Amino acid sequence: MKIKILTLFPNMFNGFLSESIIKRAIDNNLIEVEVIDYRKYSQEKHNHVDDTPYGGGAGMVIKCDVIDRAIEDNKTNKSFICLMTPQGEQFTQQMAIDLSKKDELILICGHYEGFDERVRDYVDKEISIGDYVLTGGEIPAMAISDSIIRLIDDVISEESPMDDSYINGLLEYPQYTRPYVYKGKAVPDVLISGNHKNIREYRLKESLRKTYLRRPDLLEKKELTKEEEKLLKEIKEEL
Amino acid sequence: MKIKILTLFPNMFNGFLSESIIKRAIDNNLIEVEVIDYRKYSQEKHNHVDDTPYGGGAGMVIKCDVIDRAIEDNKTNKSFICLMTPQGEQFTQQMAIDLSKKDELILICGHYEGFDERVRDYVDKEISIGDYVLTGGEIPAMAISDSIIRLIDDVISEESPMDDSYINGLLEYPQYTRPYVYKGKAVPDVLISGNHKNIREYRLKESLRKTYLRRPDLLEKKELTKEEEKLLKEIKEEL
Repeated sequence: MKIKILTLFPNMFNGFLSESIIKRAIDNNLIEVEVIDYRKYSQEKHNHVDDTPYGGGAGMVIKCDVIDRAIEDNKTNKSFICLMTPQGEQFTQQMAIDLSKKDELILICGHYEGFDERVRDYVDKEISIGDYVLTGGEIPAMAISDSIIRLIDDVISEESPMDDSYINGLLEYPQYTRPYVYKGKAVPDVLISGNHKNIREYRLKESLRKTYLRRPDLLEKKELTKEEEKLLKEIKEEL
Repeated sequence: MKIKILTLFPNMFNGFLSESIIKRAIDNNLIEVEVIDYRKYSQEKHNHVDDTPYGGGAGMVIKCDVIDRAIEDNKTNKSFICLMTPQGEQFTQQMAIDLSKKDELILICGHYEGFDERVRDYVDKEISIGDYVLTGGEIPAMAISDSIIRLIDDVISEESPMDDSYINGLLEYPQYTRPYVYKGKAVPDVLISGNHKNIREYRLKESLRKTYLRRPDLLEKKELTKEEEKLLKEIKEEL
């Protein structure tokens, strides 16, 4: 897979691309990431890419012709083009899974006030990473790239992604590691029992409990198994 | 305001801190950001900070004693301590506004499998930036810092934040800039009319339309003015 990121601030990605899992995935040729400064598609002096809004108002608007030329110069017949915008569809783990199957992604980052409305005609999807306002699309492009890259075969060990929060529609169960006791708090007995059946049930129940208490909306969307229904009933009785 | 970020990958923040609005806010002493490698609070050789989970399973778990020491060494009586975790409360623009009023934030980033459950006792809030899985808490810490810093007085021009998507509970209206016509598509007449009353009404109506079509959930949460109700009725009739 190849990800091309169009941005006005290519240096913002330096840390992201040179650390940890993402760096290793790039070094191992599992993924290719190209960061492109779309200022080079400006045809104005000083390489301006934005201008004041028609109708007045604060801030600057990114010009549609610059984005159009940047896309045209970078897209192939395999490209899937995404616009980073707070007006887009909410990014979810399911969207990450879907996008991880594409051959090539182009992620377009804005800054300040946003894009000329006509830019929306040139993209396949508009994506928002959440209901909050950021100074630009660079952090969303990192979040989306990161969540996609970790799903690509061999990027992380096979077992890990299946354990993820959200994959099975529940929040993750509590995890513990050494020390066994810290400041008077010990690891739950079941986890050191060696009884794998009990450990599995404990984890499923605590996953359900955490989801019920913190994100009941996730439970509403999920089809529960018989076992999960029984455990959830126990949890409700315990409260 | 001061933001302290505890992370295993301090270099990931280099680009974020050295570009654009955030760099300017730091240079102008409007905000102080300190990135701290919490590996230095390990008491093991090779500075390990994680260990295998009790009860078995894939991945590594970050140890509670390391995080506890890192917090104790960095917190003051003004600190508000936030854990970056997919199990946390969903980050929203309202949370950004609330956090922007704190004197000092400590943001704790995990990596891989997550934290020892006991870490949750040492923090004031657990935050998730959305329902998707990332390789670590670094990108969430950037997103949260970015959205907070831009709200601090004098970081961006006064007019801008009030125009934001979400501030008034609606998605932003369409914006246009030069060229007037591009590939056969012209800017809407009203925006070049010079009639400020009509421009204001057009923008409010298009904001409502976009929100109604893309994010009806936001409209349900919003108390509409008489004018907004009238415009929304028109929109529904037009469809």
